[in-house]
Amino acid sequence: MGTGLIGGSIGLGLRRRGWWVTGRDVNPARQARALELGALDEVGTDPEAMVTFIATPAGAVAEEAAEALEHTGAVTDVAGIKGPVLAKVDHPRFVGGHPMAGSEQEGVDGSDPDMFEGATWVLTPAANTDAGAFATVRSVVSTLGANVVELPAARHDDLVALVSHVPHLTAATLMNLAADTALEHATLLRLAAGGFRDMTRVAAGEPAIWPDLCVDNRAGILDVLDRLLVALGDVRQIVATGDRAQMLDMLERAREARVNLPAGAPSSEKTAELRVPVPDRPGVLAEVTTLLGEMAVNIYDLEIAHSAEGDRGVLVLVVDALATDRVRQALHIRDFRCSVRRLGP
Amino acid sequence: MGTGLIGGSIGLGLRRRGWWVTGRDVNPARQARALELGALDEVGTDPEAMVTFIATPAGAVAEEAAEALEHTGAVTDVAGIKGPVLAKVDHPRFVGGHPMAGSEQEGVDGSDPDMFEGATWVLTPAANTDAGAFATVRSVVSTLGANVVELPAARHDDLVALVSHVPHLTAATLMNLAADTALEHATLLRLAAGGFRDMTRVAAGEPAIWPDLCVDNRAGILDVLDRLLVALGDVRQIVATGDRAQMLDMLERAREARVNLPAGAPSSEKTAELRVPVPDRPGVLAEVTTLLGEMAVNIYDLEIAHSAEGDRGVLVLVVDALATDRVRQALHIRDFRCSVRRLGP
Repeated sequence: MGTGLIGGSIGLGLRRRGWWVTGRDVNPARQARALELGALDEVGTDPEAMVTFIATPAGAVAEEAAEALEHTGAVTDVAGIKGPVLAKVDHPRFVGGHPMAGSEQEGVDGSDPDMFEGATWVLTPAANTDAGAFATVRSVVSTLGANVVELPAARHDDLVALVSHVPHLTAATLMNLAADTALEHATLLRLAAGGFRDMTRVAAGEPAIWPDLCVDNRAGILDVLDRLLVALGDVRQIVATGDRAQMLDMLERAREARVNLPAGAPSSEKTAELRVPVPDRPGVLAEVTTLLGEMAVNIYDLEIAHSAEGDRGVLVLVVDALATDRVRQALHIRDFRCSVRRLGP
Repeated sequence: MGTGLIGGSIGLGLRRRGWWVTGRDVNPARQARALELGALDEVGTDPEAMVTFIATPAGAVAEEAAEALEHTGAVTDVAGIKGPVLAKVDHPRFVGGHPMAGSEQEGVDGSDPDMFEGATWVLTPAANTDAGAFATVRSVVSTLGANVVELPAARHDDLVALVSHVPHLTAATLMNLAADTALEHATLLRLAAGGFRDMTRVAAGEPAIWPDLCVDNRAGILDVLDRLLVALGDVRQIVATGDRAQMLDMLERAREARVNLPAGAPSSEKTAELRVPVPDRPGVLAEVTTLLGEMAVNIYDLEIAHSAEGDRGVLVLVVDALATDRVRQALHIRDFRCSVRRLGP
């Protein structure tokens, strides 16, 4: 549902991997263009769909989700803010999602089947999330090449304020400061070398989604903005006093953090399979996956194996082999036992 | 003088274009490496050099310049801040310079003969700058593929605070804010998509040059930091009140400015030659070139034609044909007359 840049890219990516994709858009021209570009097999709604992606603006998700949830498949969305969406759509087969790619909306013509290759795709399972629906969404998203990170919705919203919303607002503010130096604007911009270009690049994105994001994530953004204002005030103080040692320390910490920013998915062949017997009750899945998410342990694969009796299942997780001991301990503290099997060579 | 990243790149670039390059470095290993990499023809000092590039840290420029100015050639430097350098080196044959490229110092092994291709290279002629020395520096810098922008030194320093120093400090501050969220650091950094990576890339650079820059350009940096703090406070207010229209307006202004950020050198074939008769007195050159610089008129080429009598010369400027009327008017106001000849097809 929704065949813009993200919806179109999902459609292209899934079709290339052999899926049958039915879709539609409120805008008939965009819908026709998506069909023409090969993002859809056919226009419409498929009541038998295994999974429905709602790739509309955040405000339209609830209505679309209600309709999709009348059928039996899993339903997910791509809105950049998850708390307000989940507050409106509270259903075991709805899994909140946020692909962290392609934020500079360019419309369906910018669609790219590889858009999510190596990108982080957050899923926000809740206490009542159905394990089967979650596993389906997770598996389909993974086939697009994305690295799935599980987080509680509220945590997601706080973190994106820090790594996306406030940086975006700061980039726009820096760009406007430069632009406001009107008399010598053009000269100034000719001095703007790579660093300034990099820093302000996101400010070139389509602004339309931001007013909603700023309202929906107000608390998270204000918290981070306040921390940024304090931190910049500290920097101002360091400059004012000319304290070279403190300046160097500040920049060296930043350098170390930036250098360690992970460049993409780890390509380790050394993975291990964790088999975690879990009671078939609501909340277990969210508890385990968000625990690993917060430990920054990447889940390369996830499967739910139900027992024949139906009241107990086995959660099968593939993770980095080096993380298995940490994971086992953390699970143990929460009364889960797991068996470990090394994979790879 | 000085064969690090910038000095090495200048040497490589000039040698490839047929110049003979003599150079040295206080660090014998770096000097030997520069020779080995082909950035130098020979190690030493050439008293006959047409131009000497001082590519040392800002603090060492004055001493090196004093030595180079004992010979007859033009002398220039590459320090990122110009006021303090010119305050110490006040000589007609010294032309302050700042190539805006390669700021993430990687040492001589990162040298690249094409580093300045399409980059902006600021020159800061002063009232007493010798026209011949200036024309030599300008011409040599241009052969490296750089776009020369003439600005008064103080103006340069204010502008780089805005497009380089404060953005750099802001990037480091954002990176540290993210890193300080220690408990979930790794998870958070996995959420950091392209925008955050772009914004914080400069923070990965070598911090060693920054304490000096922050001291040398304290006033300019504090002024811009204060403006940024006020502007971010305004943004905070917009978020707090949830004013969508103001948010959209703020972001749309930034978008327009970012989209209009020039991508590089204009490749116009439509240029015009301005011939400006000028009295052969100090200050004329700086006056004319910084006037055009502040009008954001790019000078593609510049030549000084001295008259036979020696008390009057002709400044030959090649500029964008579309700018000639503006330039003629501006020169007229300052009592210069010029003739215009169209070039190109």
